[in-house]
Amino acid sequence: MVRFLVLYETPEDPAAFDKHYNEIHIPLVKQLPGLLSYTVSRNLAALDEAKYYLIAELDWENKAALQAAFASEIGVQTTADVPKFAPTGVHRLIYEVAEA
Amino acid sequence: MVRFLVLYETPEDPAAFDKHYNEIHIPLVKQLPGLLSYTVSRNLAALDEAKYYLIAELDWENKAALQAAFASEIGVQTTADVPKFAPTGVHRLIYEVAEA
Repeated sequence: MVRFLVLYETPEDPAAFDKHYNEIHIPLVKQLPGLLSYTVSRNLAALDEAKYYLIAELDWENKAALQAAFASEIGVQTTADVPKFAPTGVHRLIYEVAEA
Repeated sequence: MVRFLVLYETPEDPAAFDKHYNEIHIPLVKQLPGLLSYTVSRNLAALDEAKYYLIAELDWENKAALQAAFASEIGVQTTADVPKFAPTGVHRLIYEVAEA
């Protein structure tokens, strides 16, 4: 399974961020082809110097499926939506999830 | 479900990091009480400025179970082991995993 992890730093206007994320971004993400699961975590307890506000985890069967999703029309729209609510402070990682 | 996410930045000596992580740290983590799942991801494809080397995800039923695990003898040993292979560049987050 391949995971797309998105870490959002604390926004300047959390209320505006939440409104856009909930009302526009989540509905876009949910339409991505082949998406197996999508979790959103708020109220993070950060140990150390981590300063993230929201973490989104999107899973696909494999990397080809993930790439196909983001190459689709809805994928392009979803990517283009991110700078509208998070112009900076977005960290994205893609990795194979393997049991230790 | 509560997740403990650990992001390790790229170490100065990746071979030494891997050896310690694989031979000492993983066996410790696997003994943590109540651990539901433990995944380790390497070979990250970082988009943007993310610069992480390894991501570990540890899941527990709830926050009380996680806290009990880290308060146990093996939990104390596990926490004390981290600076031995990652003296800096460790980011830890705890959050409730919820479907979007």
